[in-house]
Amino acid sequence: MDLIVVMKSGSAPDDLQRVADRIAELGFKPHISRGEFRTIVGAIGEYDPEARQQLEQLPGVDEVMAISQPYKLASREFHEADTIFDVKDVRIGGPNVNIIAGPCAIESREVLFDVGKAVKDAGASILRGGAFKPRTSPYAFSGMGKEGLELLREAGAALDMPTITEVMDPRDVSAVYEFADIFQIGARNMQNYNLLLEVGKTDKPVFIKRGIAASVTELLMSAEYVLSQGNHRVILCERGIRTFADETRFTLDVSAIPVIQERSHLPVFVDPSHAAGKRDLVPPLALAGIAAGAQGAIIEVHSCPDRALCDGPQAVLPKNFQKLMQQIRQLADLVGHRVSDPGRNTTNK
Amino acid sequence: MDLIVVMKSGSAPDDLQRVADRIAELGFKPHISRGEFRTIVGAIGEYDPEARQQLEQLPGVDEVMAISQPYKLASREFHEADTIFDVKDVRIGGPNVNIIAGPCAIESREVLFDVGKAVKDAGASILRGGAFKPRTSPYAFSGMGKEGLELLREAGAALDMPTITEVMDPRDVSAVYEFADIFQIGARNMQNYNLLLEVGKTDKPVFIKRGIAASVTELLMSAEYVLSQGNHRVILCERGIRTFADETRFTLDVSAIPVIQERSHLPVFVDPSHAAGKRDLVPPLALAGIAAGAQGAIIEVHSCPDRALCDGPQAVLPKNFQKLMQQIRQLADLVGHRVSDPGRNTTNK
Amino acid sequence: MDLIVVMKSGSAPDDLQRVADRIAELGFKPHISRGEFRTIVGAIGEYDPEARQQLEQLPGVDEVMAISQPYKLASREFHEADTIFDVKDVRIGGPNVNIIAGPCAIESREVLFDVGKAVKDAGASILRGGAFKPRTSPYAFSGMGKEGLELLREAGAALDMPTITEVMDPRDVSAVYEFADIFQIGARNMQNYNLLLEVGKTDKPVFIKRGIAASVTELLMSAEYVLSQGNHRVILCERGIRTFADETRFTLDVSAIPVIQERSHLPVFVDPSHAAGKRDLVPPLALAGIAAGAQGAIIEVHSCPDRALCDGPQAVLPKNFQKLMQQIRQLADLVGHRVSDPGRNTTNK
Amino acid sequence: MDLIVVMKSGSAPDDLQRVADRIAELGFKPHISRGEFRTIVGAIGEYDPEARQQLEQLPGVDEVMAISQPYKLASREFHEADTIFDVKDVRIGGPNVNIIAGPCAIESREVLFDVGKAVKDAGASILRGGAFKPRTSPYAFSGMGKEGLELLREAGAALDMPTITEVMDPRDVSAVYEFADIFQIGARNMQNYNLLLEVGKTDKPVFIKRGIAASVTELLMSAEYVLSQGNHRVILCERGIRTFADETRFTLDVSAIPVIQERSHLPVFVDPSHAAGKRDLVPPLALAGIAAGAQGAIIEVHSCPDRALCDGPQAVLPKNFQKLMQQIRQLADLVGHRVSDPGRNTTNK
Repeated sequence: MDLIVVMKSGSAPDDLQRVADRIAELGFKPHISRGEFRTIVGAIGEYDPEARQQLEQLPGVDEVMAISQPYKLASREFHEADTIFDVKDVRIGGPNVNIIAGPCAIESREVLFDVGKAVKDAGASILRGGAFKPRTSPYAFSGMGKEGLELLREAGAALDMPTITEVMDPRDVSAVYEFADIFQIGARNMQNYNLLLEVGKTDKPVFIKRGIAASVTELLMSAEYVLSQGNHRVILCERGIRTFADETRFTLDVSAIPVIQERSHLPVFVDPSHAAGKRDLVPPLALAGIAAGAQGAIIEVHSCPDRALCDGPQAVLPKNFQKLMQQIRQLADLVGHRVSDPGRNTTNK
Repeated sequence: MDLIVVMKSGSAPDDLQRVADRIAELGFKPHISRGEFRTIVGAIGEYDPEARQQLEQLPGVDEVMAISQPYKLASREFHEADTIFDVKDVRIGGPNVNIIAGPCAIESREVLFDVGKAVKDAGASILRGGAFKPRTSPYAFSGMGKEGLELLREAGAALDMPTITEVMDPRDVSAVYEFADIFQIGARNMQNYNLLLEVGKTDKPVFIKRGIAASVTELLMSAEYVLSQGNHRVILCERGIRTFADETRFTLDVSAIPVIQERSHLPVFVDPSHAAGKRDLVPPLALAGIAAGAQGAIIEVHSCPDRALCDGPQAVLPKNFQKLMQQIRQLADLVGHRVSDPGRNTTNK
Repeated sequence: MDLIVVMKSGSAPDDLQRVADRIAELGFKPHISRGEFRTIVGAIGEYDPEARQQLEQLPGVDEVMAISQPYKLASREFHEADTIFDVKDVRIGGPNVNIIAGPCAIESREVLFDVGKAVKDAGASILRGGAFKPRTSPYAFSGMGKEGLELLREAGAALDMPTITEVMDPRDVSAVYEFADIFQIGARNMQNYNLLLEVGKTDKPVFIKRGIAASVTELLMSAEYVLSQGNHRVILCERGIRTFADETRFTLDVSAIPVIQERSHLPVFVDPSHAAGKRDLVPPLALAGIAAGAQGAIIEVHSCPDRALCDGPQAVLPKNFQKLMQQIRQLADLVGHRVSDPGRNTTNK
Repeated sequence: MDLIVVMKSGSAPDDLQRVADRIAELGFKPHISRGEFRTIVGAIGEYDPEARQQLEQLPGVDEVMAISQPYKLASREFHEADTIFDVKDVRIGGPNVNIIAGPCAIESREVLFDVGKAVKDAGASILRGGAFKPRTSPYAFSGMGKEGLELLREAGAALDMPTITEVMDPRDVSAVYEFADIFQIGARNMQNYNLLLEVGKTDKPVFIKRGIAASVTELLMSAEYVLSQGNHRVILCERGIRTFADETRFTLDVSAIPVIQERSHLPVFVDPSHAAGKRDLVPPLALAGIAAGAQGAIIEVHSCPDRALCDGPQAVLPKNFQKLMQQIRQLADLVGHRVSDPGRNTTNK
């Protein structure tokens, strides 16, 4: 990380010397540049999050600016080409667009299999379903737990689809590892660092949702936690941020998609369901995300949403999902992407 | 506006009587409904913004909820079908998608005509250019004023394009009326009510940009100001809101597009340029807006943006605009819209 | 939880019947109230978070409004008087104002004891120090872990002060239980529900910081998680929310203090250090919080902040802390509170 | 304004030359500083808002950072001591704390005189009352206009208090000038630049409320508009910003008070009424603002708020205002300020 220390206009020579000394002590190389009114000191070296905070407190210092970003493994500078990887025979990243679909929570074998078959037929390539559900209320349905995981594995096998499910607790990582193909880290846990470290130690892909108040930089730092443990298969997901605009459940920050893609090589998905909070808004937001360049979407589908135990209002019906998939397919082509068709991966290469 | 007054659980009979009396005094009809624990009083009648505030202060009242929206003329309930109208031979609204393009500010005849020709050739149907520029700094270039208006009229005539330009001051309404075809109300002036009333009294269309902290309801209330004066040709524009996310200049609230369209019959455009603040992000945001159902976009184009006197970093180059127009045309079809082609309006009908 | 279901103006009688039936099926009592234009149905019964979501999807339903709050044990309705409890001989809550102070992270025995003595002498009643530090970067100093816990226990004993330290992982709850007197749940973990359940099962107080994008209701729901396990000693803390205003690290939402106190019986503290991010702003924000009625503050103090390994810029120096304590003492009196003086608790009763 | 241009790590020598040439062309002096990996170019000269935008578009440029702030006359660097001035015999700024009070809107002679007398007796030094009210709805009461101005002048004379009232339209500046002592610019008009220029041309003080989404820098730029016209008597006011937190009408950004005071010499007031939206919250927020160092507050008081035509729920009753004034007086002393007592100004000097 390179820093620029801007000295105050009337700072003393001693102040400058002290700054230069501290920079050297911190392991950076100081480069002093005297302007007419201001002196600035460049500090060049490895990333060190404490250095900036310490330098900005020294006498005579006006401001310390970071030139480069605090993440490394997640950055395009470190890894220029798009990260592309396979989960079973589904190829993720680069020009490939994958749609993850299924019910919000796993509630019963019947609903899971019904919805799973419907989304598979429509063209979804990955099956979702929550076994552990983070709920704002301690009195709400919080998932079927291990029994749900078993149903998910069974459904994935029957439908020949890789599966994704949320993990909320470091103590559940090994159980989820056993039953699902992709770990989902929910928005509330984006900065649950011990959880990120645990999934980072496994060899299964990690799908990280942006926290509702997280900056793009913080999202990439959370990816860095996983990458730093040696797990390079990370997917990022924009799912809406919290703003004053309360007409939707969250505000989908569609701009974040190209912004992340410019800075990072990791695949970026969009979650229109949680952003919208209302099924009528899911198709326009899904299309907006794909139009902005998202490499996939995660969409909640339910066959009987007014009986759903979680987030029914935002679940789309299977027939509407089918229509949406057709639009997504055409739209992906229009922006130079293509929707994955797991049966024909070899031709995708 | 219908209101529901929820009484506190232990409120006295006198409190209830007082509420019912005040409701009647305010010109509403009270409907009392006694629940087991709570009593609620419905108040049915015409919209009255003071009524709610007054009722919620009465003793024994827990909460007053408004069932219906405070706008009327702008609502779908009042006018179910999409508003569609012509400006010269350009049809706006309904399934028609119109692209407004041109430089941010009118800086010179040469740039205006160059850019105007380029965007016309690429398929833009309306020409933009600012003569009065609201600038955060009193020391910044604030537009050519009347000289700019004259250039804009001349360019519009030469290119056979209707023109749009911003008006910031009620005292300038008559001058802008004389020279341009559409009044633009900028985000900073969305709640400049006297200005809204002045343009509402004219017979030229008004293009209102959402304020950076305005709710959808407040935007529709600003439209209501114009509509209430008898001017029914109003276009609304989502241009990004201010949130914690500072990677882009503003956060494009793409969800607002379908939300407004559900509540109102007025056409909704998207402004990707101001939301992005950076030209590379303009195409993905423009496409996201059209994918979400926007009936048009307003895009800043400049032939020499690093010499622009205002907002150069967000101006796209003419050649990139041309490519974007091709994508917009296909995308509009995909979502059941079509890009306006002014020469063939009769077939659009 | 009582709900009001507002039917659409033209809804069919069948729709109404279906709503009433479903309300009954969900275990609520339906109360139909026919207005001139609108019919509304009250649903009275126990809290059920799924009910609202299910009802709002039924045909003919316009809106479902909740009259009461989703938390129960945390509410003033359930427990009218302020919660007051002792930790060792420190009385917390009600009119008592307690200042928690110490270094951000435990870095060395020397700094911890130095700072601890200084804050004790100035009038702080509880000692803070982080052994497990959540850091945005995986490369940053993340605390001394168990060694830090041991130092904290030792310092608390030597200074005769109860101690507080953050716990981030359910697997660390028993270790922290052993060494510290109060569990701190950081802002990033406010919705780490499994962690809340674990500390809820213990008999030590829990200090919950508001998440940077959490509503007051969500904060109270997190308290409800702890309370629901039988642990009634919960302290809430406003520590700044994330907004567009980036002149400070976070925006201290000082209004939240009286808002929470109106709704809940739990003590509310303020954290000026994290909100400010800069030591010069800590005194004005601390005073603002106490003036608004906070029952305590948590303040970072460091004897050598430009060498601190974490958040040095927001640490106040011991001499400035002493001056601040004097102001806090007078200010507490002015608003009808009093700063705890652990030696004389009997007279405080 | 001094700028730092950071070149990309692999930028070409030609790029550097082009940047240096453009800096010179823009009237700045370029200072090149070659680091090991990065080259940075300092640009020293007068403020020029276009320069930064133009430079950041040049090839090879990574980022352009501004070292200094874009305002000048409003800054502490330009004018180090606090601005202090008199309005009639009321001294504003520096250590003086002034309370502005009165009804939201002028509704009748009776209410205005009643409330005026009550707030004068309690210790308010300036009388407020709106004659032109910006209202979200075109159907709401929008003030008594000129008749209201006449009542305000009469009340001010009778009570021997200077008066403040809002002006919304450049065409009303001369009328308001005639009848009131201080111009109030509302939050919605903080960036109504023509209005700011008009009041800047007068010799009466201007009270500028921060826009609900304005940064501190933007607020100071609006002050700069007034100052640039030669009117040096400007008061700034924090009145709450719009955030996700909807438990209060707005989020009072209490941190902004010391932040503005650090950067600017202008007096800073707080408006607890609009931030709170609810009378019970007005005292804690007023105290929080004064505790944070505000040099005054503007508070809505109404003798019969449940009959008020505007914002009744946030008006405090006269008896509660009296109690609040007593607390404010003591609190001002505690933070080194003092509440103005117009009768004894000479001793204040």
